[in-house]
Amino acid sequence: MHFASDNWAGAAPQIVEAVAAEAARVGVAYGGSALDERVAARFSELFECEVAVFFVATGSAANGLAMSAVGCTGGVVFCHEDCHMIEGECGGVEFLTGGARLLGLPGAAGKLDIDALERAIAAFTPASEHNGRGMAVSLTQQSEAGTVYSLEEIRRVGEIAHANDMPLHMDGARFANALAHLDVSPAAMTWKAGVDILSFGATKNGCFAAEAVVFFDPSRAADMPFLRKRAGQLFSKSRFVAAQFDAYLRDGLWLELARHANAMAGRLRAGLAASNAAREAWPTTGNEIFAVLRRDNAKSLRTAGAEFHEWTRGGAEVADDEILVRFVTAFSTRPDEVDAAVEMLR
Amino acid sequence: MHFASDNWAGAAPQIVEAVAAEAARVGVAYGGSALDERVAARFSELFECEVAVFFVATGSAANGLAMSAVGCTGGVVFCHEDCHMIEGECGGVEFLTGGARLLGLPGAAGKLDIDALERAIAAFTPASEHNGRGMAVSLTQQSEAGTVYSLEEIRRVGEIAHANDMPLHMDGARFANALAHLDVSPAAMTWKAGVDILSFGATKNGCFAAEAVVFFDPSRAADMPFLRKRAGQLFSKSRFVAAQFDAYLRDGLWLELARHANAMAGRLRAGLAASNAAREAWPTTGNEIFAVLRRDNAKSLRTAGAEFHEWTRGGAEVADDEILVRFVTAFSTRPDEVDAAVEMLR
Amino acid sequence: MHFASDNWAGAAPQIVEAVAAEAARVGVAYGGSALDERVAARFSELFECEVAVFFVATGSAANGLAMSAVGCTGGVVFCHEDCHMIEGECGGVEFLTGGARLLGLPGAAGKLDIDALERAIAAFTPASEHNGRGMAVSLTQQSEAGTVYSLEEIRRVGEIAHANDMPLHMDGARFANALAHLDVSPAAMTWKAGVDILSFGATKNGCFAAEAVVFFDPSRAADMPFLRKRAGQLFSKSRFVAAQFDAYLRDGLWLELARHANAMAGRLRAGLAASNAAREAWPTTGNEIFAVLRRDNAKSLRTAGAEFHEWTRGGAEVADDEILVRFVTAFSTRPDEVDAAVEMLR
Amino acid sequence: MHFASDNWAGAAPQIVEAVAAEAARVGVAYGGSALDERVAARFSELFECEVAVFFVATGSAANGLAMSAVGCTGGVVFCHEDCHMIEGECGGVEFLTGGARLLGLPGAAGKLDIDALERAIAAFTPASEHNGRGMAVSLTQQSEAGTVYSLEEIRRVGEIAHANDMPLHMDGARFANALAHLDVSPAAMTWKAGVDILSFGATKNGCFAAEAVVFFDPSRAADMPFLRKRAGQLFSKSRFVAAQFDAYLRDGLWLELARHANAMAGRLRAGLAASNAAREAWPTTGNEIFAVLRRDNAKSLRTAGAEFHEWTRGGAEVADDEILVRFVTAFSTRPDEVDAAVEMLR
Repeated sequence: MHFASDNWAGAAPQIVEAVAAEAARVGVAYGGSALDERVAARFSELFECEVAVFFVATGSAANGLAMSAVGCTGGVVFCHEDCHMIEGECGGVEFLTGGARLLGLPGAAGKLDIDALERAIAAFTPASEHNGRGMAVSLTQQSEAGTVYSLEEIRRVGEIAHANDMPLHMDGARFANALAHLDVSPAAMTWKAGVDILSFGATKNGCFAAEAVVFFDPSRAADMPFLRKRAGQLFSKSRFVAAQFDAYLRDGLWLELARHANAMAGRLRAGLAASNAAREAWPTTGNEIFAVLRRDNAKSLRTAGAEFHEWTRGGAEVADDEILVRFVTAFSTRPDEVDAAVEMLR
Repeated sequence: MHFASDNWAGAAPQIVEAVAAEAARVGVAYGGSALDERVAARFSELFECEVAVFFVATGSAANGLAMSAVGCTGGVVFCHEDCHMIEGECGGVEFLTGGARLLGLPGAAGKLDIDALERAIAAFTPASEHNGRGMAVSLTQQSEAGTVYSLEEIRRVGEIAHANDMPLHMDGARFANALAHLDVSPAAMTWKAGVDILSFGATKNGCFAAEAVVFFDPSRAADMPFLRKRAGQLFSKSRFVAAQFDAYLRDGLWLELARHANAMAGRLRAGLAASNAAREAWPTTGNEIFAVLRRDNAKSLRTAGAEFHEWTRGGAEVADDEILVRFVTAFSTRPDEVDAAVEMLR
Repeated sequence: MHFASDNWAGAAPQIVEAVAAEAARVGVAYGGSALDERVAARFSELFECEVAVFFVATGSAANGLAMSAVGCTGGVVFCHEDCHMIEGECGGVEFLTGGARLLGLPGAAGKLDIDALERAIAAFTPASEHNGRGMAVSLTQQSEAGTVYSLEEIRRVGEIAHANDMPLHMDGARFANALAHLDVSPAAMTWKAGVDILSFGATKNGCFAAEAVVFFDPSRAADMPFLRKRAGQLFSKSRFVAAQFDAYLRDGLWLELARHANAMAGRLRAGLAASNAAREAWPTTGNEIFAVLRRDNAKSLRTAGAEFHEWTRGGAEVADDEILVRFVTAFSTRPDEVDAAVEMLR
Repeated sequence: MHFASDNWAGAAPQIVEAVAAEAARVGVAYGGSALDERVAARFSELFECEVAVFFVATGSAANGLAMSAVGCTGGVVFCHEDCHMIEGECGGVEFLTGGARLLGLPGAAGKLDIDALERAIAAFTPASEHNGRGMAVSLTQQSEAGTVYSLEEIRRVGEIAHANDMPLHMDGARFANALAHLDVSPAAMTWKAGVDILSFGATKNGCFAAEAVVFFDPSRAADMPFLRKRAGQLFSKSRFVAAQFDAYLRDGLWLELARHANAMAGRLRAGLAASNAAREAWPTTGNEIFAVLRRDNAKSLRTAGAEFHEWTRGGAEVADDEILVRFVTAFSTRPDEVDAAVEMLR
């Protein structure tokens, strides 16, 4: 019963095979191999436009370097107050950008509140050398609260960003889960909806370590080779990241893995709905579920071997004898794990 | 005939197997798994002392974070003018430390000249707020010029560093090759000789991406968890780096791989010695050879499919119709590749 | 009718004379003159304890370097959401510290809300490499909202900071105005109440440019000479800053100037209280007043030559035909200016 | 006998008067006053072209912010190995630019060697993400060795910079002394000779603290208001810097002061030429003289009250019983001081 995080999962067999096959070959280092180039081209196909793509080691690095690429002196990033850049990167964006400020905004269920966003941006309009200036808007798809922005919602955020001369960044650590849920094209969920830069994560969804920054306008990426290298994020044997992406994107593997994770979450949601001992804290749609449990039930569940994290954000009402927890499913979650947990929560 | 770089090599089968086996498991993320802990303990055994070890994505990250961990305002790092931190990291040390200066010093065949080191340090003694202060001494073992410091040479550098209240850092991107050549213990070549911090590289010697910073005095590493995370260098699925190191260090695999690479270099050296068309630019002892070739011979070699880089540093005498090149062997270099190259240089 | 800012004021005659007298002398540069040393000693006398004092160019530099001196990787500074470090320094603290985060907290009338402070700190306890760690607590005395913390209030904030192993920083851009209001000793309002580091501002209160960072525990300041120099904040002719402080602190000039500014604010407050056309937005006690005016009155006042800024923070209720404005008095404000403004607001 | 540094000098009476007069006035803060604007316009007149000018606190800040304004990721600044940015700013350029590297080049008597400059630049051509890229060329006029570049020499450096798409920066901490020596127009010695950005220093030549960054192409300065503010370098009472420049540039005061300092240096040079106990280490032309003295003579001179610094750079031949020293004259140096020193060196 592994629900602690999709980061706890292993790697999909197809990913393993691709890496193993590449291990037997010799190839140009630092991203110059034929495989690196082939995978870069595949990203352009996937997104139906010419993109610039840069592999990096972690999702935090993807976010930080994406922000660096659009950084400006005294820059302010408008994002959700619970987003990963604020909550889980140890000041990495601030550091990698040389001092940008993350302005955390409220918003129900992990999604930016449009009014709050507009008000916050207005406070920096016009740009002033005294309090700084807007630099980027960032949203997380699937959000940290397990919710998914609709295309219309992304478009609205993008319009606001662009009307204020800022790019829109999407933190896509769980991009595949969101895409699988919306069942739209990668292009539709990104540049067609106004996204300018994407942190494209594959690690959580079946890879070892495969993260990339994707620029939908390659001219914005002119500095990225230097930014990435300077941050110690250019793999010498870049081929092995390329190999992971190659298998990941081939024949729709990535969406298949994400659909499985989402289906397992759906199965768990259904179980919770039928339970008296637990309830969803708010509706979710991807591979994360936030549930309010009675403390004794949570304890029993843990004793029985289930792994999950307590959660402190999101604003759910939680009684004294209750606890808010997060369940995350992964490509490798088995139906019997879910069923066992549901059974215990009956 | 792959002699471009050990970074062009693939990965050893044992490394592949270890990663594949781990892929089927679920484990705690961010370095908290039993495997991560086991491998950390193994590093302490290997070095015969309690060490603090931190996995990172690249050798550049290892160097930059090692320097950050000992950084000081206005700090100056004394290192060889041809070292990787100066020549190949796009200002990464300067960036990750928030502005340290790398002071490149001369020295024959890639090794620090002791007199130059002492003079350079003296210019910063006593520390002054005007021109800055010494922060660390760094040497590269095996050096960028394919040479290896003797234990006595390391000790001498360490004494100078310590006499001036600075730690000694060793960039060990090719640590195994140097160790295999000296045939001493890891402890002997590091802390027993005065090394305080080590960038321990395994990627070049048969791994996919396995680099670590090793602190021989763990108290120096108190800030490292934060430094690493902030730089986007903490792998979520850290287990897969641990798995590589686990296999790498088991049953002496790492030294076996390095000895093979060194032996292949030795075979090439012997071939060059017998050649009229090429000569060693300076004596080397690890898995790198620097050779002066006639331009037409170099061209023929390339035409025949050999890969190698032209070199511009090191101070060899090269006539107008000659070219200085670097040959690097790897764990995967085959004797027949070497022999084919030697044959062509006859 | 100059009420725009105390930064618009000139300099007191005694300050001018001191600088002029020093201009005729030759003296050691970079802070090494006898005058520099004498003034440094005077700070220790003033605060009744051995302090380390560093002159810098601006209040923003004082704040930023103070934070740098206590900086840590992934550090978070707990401060009021309307404080100058957040609202008026263009990301200077983030930049000078290499990426610290300013966590803006609510609080009525510009003063930190104790509960909000404790909750915010708790979210970073224990320290985690994922979301960072507490680095300092900062309060502004006199606050940006023209209010003054009582000694008891400072003590309470200091206790919380210290209980969480953080130093307490006081931004004292208007230190003299607050001190004159409380009528206590400099020691009482600082280290005796728990303040560890002070940005001591004199520019607003009659100097040209005289700002200092004061460390009540000099051992904390070991890095400051380097931090200051590296930031381009060490004046070569430091003597001329020293000369300003020398005159400023002599015979109580500084408090005399502040008392005058406060008295002028009191006179204006009294006028507002008697006015039908304006009201104080919230009670203030130093040299700043925040008033809600009818828009037409504000316009008339401006037409008549009065200078003041519109204000957007602080949470006062302002009707559509009203405007929130800030009036600031200075050491040079004349009673007749105040009376003229009051007359117009009748 | 004050020859330690022009930084030890006081301030010229005209500067004092200008500041004193301004002290009695009220004016807009942060550079928005009529005086600030008038002085900015005067810089454009002075240089016979539209310039963007930014006042800052110190010469180090001017250099660091100038470099920041043209900074790039992985950037390298080509400059003389003995220049102030390398020798006297505690890593300020590295820090303020977020990690640029200063590449110190050799050159006789403090002036860049053209061949060394071209070779160094060539090593970074074409730009590579591995070893970084050229960012700026910087020269110091008057140089740190008391020498002055001819217009032709500046033009040659500028051509090389521009041919490699880099701006040419001039550190003009002693700009007036060099200009007075060459007796050409400010335009001729700067943008007409290829200079793009100038650190314009007035502090050493009779001001309290008046330094500015001048951009000859204002479009390059778009980021400067933010860079300056973020670094804590925007004076609130900027008027008092403007007042210094106003008096400094009025009626040729600045050149008059510089000519006096240069004349005093000339008087000292003549005295040294006639001396048996000392000799010039190399020919100088501004307000600095580098002399080799017998140690006993240097000691006697010091005992008699003369102040001067020992020097360690520049490459002069100095016997064991000799010492290399620097004499600096200032606007306030008196002929009798010079004569007394000369008398002692007879």
